[in-house]
Amino acid sequence: MAKKLNVTPLHDRVLIQPAVAETKSAGGIIIPDTAKEKPQRGIVVAVGAGKKDEPMTVKAGDAVLYGKYAGQELEFEGKQYLIMRESDIVAIL
Amino acid sequence: MAKKLNVTPLHDRVLIQPAVAETKSAGGIIIPDTAKEKPQRGIVVAVGAGKKDEPMTVKAGDAVLYGKYAGQELEFEGKQYLIMRESDIVAIL
Amino acid sequence: MAKKLNVTPLHDRVLIQPAVAETKSAGGIIIPDTAKEKPQRGIVVAVGAGKKDEPMTVKAGDAVLYGKYAGQELEFEGKQYLIMRESDIVAIL
Amino acid sequence: MAKKLNVTPLHDRVLIQPAVAETKSAGGIIIPDTAKEKPQRGIVVAVGAGKKDEPMTVKAGDAVLYGKYAGQELEFEGKQYLIMRESDIVAIL
Amino acid sequence: MAKKLNVTPLHDRVLIQPAVAETKSAGGIIIPDTAKEKPQRGIVVAVGAGKKDEPMTVKAGDAVLYGKYAGQELEFEGKQYLIMRESDIVAIL
Amino acid sequence: MAKKLNVTPLHDRVLIQPAVAETKSAGGIIIPDTAKEKPQRGIVVAVGAGKKDEPMTVKAGDAVLYGKYAGQELEFEGKQYLIMRESDIVAIL
Amino acid sequence: MAKKLNVTPLHDRVLIQPAVAETKSAGGIIIPDTAKEKPQRGIVVAVGAGKKDEPMTVKAGDAVLYGKYAGQELEFEGKQYLIMRESDIVAIL
Repeated sequence: MAKKLNVTPLHDRVLIQPAVAETKSAGGIIIPDTAKEKPQRGIVVAVGAGKKDEPMTVKAGDAVLYGKYAGQELEFEGKQYLIMRESDIVAIL
Repeated sequence: MAKKLNVTPLHDRVLIQPAVAETKSAGGIIIPDTAKEKPQRGIVVAVGAGKKDEPMTVKAGDAVLYGKYAGQELEFEGKQYLIMRESDIVAIL
Repeated sequence: MAKKLNVTPLHDRVLIQPAVAETKSAGGIIIPDTAKEKPQRGIVVAVGAGKKDEPMTVKAGDAVLYGKYAGQELEFEGKQYLIMRESDIVAIL
Repeated sequence: MAKKLNVTPLHDRVLIQPAVAETKSAGGIIIPDTAKEKPQRGIVVAVGAGKKDEPMTVKAGDAVLYGKYAGQELEFEGKQYLIMRESDIVAIL
Repeated sequence: MAKKLNVTPLHDRVLIQPAVAETKSAGGIIIPDTAKEKPQRGIVVAVGAGKKDEPMTVKAGDAVLYGKYAGQELEFEGKQYLIMRESDIVAIL
Repeated sequence: MAKKLNVTPLHDRVLIQPAVAETKSAGGIIIPDTAKEKPQRGIVVAVGAGKKDEPMTVKAGDAVLYGKYAGQELEFEGKQYLIMRESDIVAIL
Repeated sequence: MAKKLNVTPLHDRVLIQPAVAETKSAGGIIIPDTAKEKPQRGIVVAVGAGKKDEPMTVKAGDAVLYGKYAGQELEFEGKQYLIMRESDIVAIL
């Protein structure tokens, strides 16, 4: 789903291609528009090597949910990416 | 009580279906309307694999109490869910 | 003194039935009305299984003192309870 | 100096009977009235069992100094007590 | 790309020569101008010896991304450098 | 220089007799009157037994420098003392 | 460059003689006048014995860079010194 990028996240970081804004996702998950902090959805593009004694859980291709303010933005060939720590990911869809 | 969801909480996180608002729950627990932070009630739908050397205690189907501001909201097929760390759960009913 | 409740505190949490407001307790302990944070008194109703390598010290039936703002309120069959971490308890009476 | 109380401090806590206000203590220690936080003086009445691998240093009967805002107040048969962590005690007199 | 500097970063620190401001980098990575904290790009010039049991991952010559406010500025022979902890680096390009 | 006091600092604490205010100390150290936090000078009078696996470094009689706001004041027979943690001491003169 | 001082930094602290204000240092390092926190330059005069299992890296005579607000000032025979933790030093020149 995501083409290979020349970006290697460091340590426990994960590069994510955020899902385009849609009111209903492919898997049927809807992110409600409420007062609480909303998890966001995206596809993992690349993962770091993990930290000492802490291997990574997610892998490239996983659809994941993450907190609204997680990560830092990065643009490559016109596409938006996010890079965040694995601990900012709350679930695999 | 809760149908199978395609959501796998990461690490020590737990997916919970909150109880609908009611003044008296099935188990007879009433959440008082007072000044203190009130625990909320729900059913565990899915649990993560736990963290290193910290297996999870709750399991799917458990009725649990959690803090009022715990977790992040998530909507699936018209139902509201919460995803939170197990440490935000205070008791199993 | 406290009937069996279907509430199992998680990890290091303790369920407590607070003493009713009285100026002099059965054991002769009076909680003074001063500027400092006042400990409160109650009876332990249920205790969690403890955390890894940290067994619990208090047990059901213990009369305990705890900080004024400790814990979260919970109501069951018309009685008020508090659920808190054992570390919020300062003494056994 | 202090009669036996039915109070068992939990973990690393210590029950202290504060010295009555006096400008010069029996041991000759005077607590100056200055801008800095002043240590206070009292007698240890009861000590907890300590924390894991951290036995207690003070014992019942010790005269100790502690920080001005240390501990929580407790009244028993007309006497004021303080309950605090051993780490709030700065010295044995 | 960067000439040898007489600067040895201490412990887990890394000396970086920031990329000159450009809208499109050599590797095609564009740093978007948005509200979120933007990662910055540079070349590693020198790395510290690491901390105890924590060897360094990046090496001199690596193109890296780092947070917008990471590090401290340093000027040498008219060129700007940044010195930061390796943990402030989010990815290797 | 300092007479024996009946004060035993607890754990990692140190009792210090501050140097009287002087613009030039005996050892030639002058504490400048600038905007930065100024270290203060005094003589160690008594030291605690240290913490587990952390023996004390300073000993009674040492002239030491410490931070301006370090410690708590204590008066004994008309002399001012300070009681502080050893980690608040920055150097031995 | 620096005469022997009778000051022994405690634990992981380092005594530093700051470089006099100059726009270009001997080694060609210029500290830019920008909005970011600027590292400062000085010569190590004395180092502590280190902490348990953490030997010191810098030694007397090293030219070092440190953060702008690092350390505490100390004056000796008309010269200004700084005393700081080794972790406040970012690089050896």
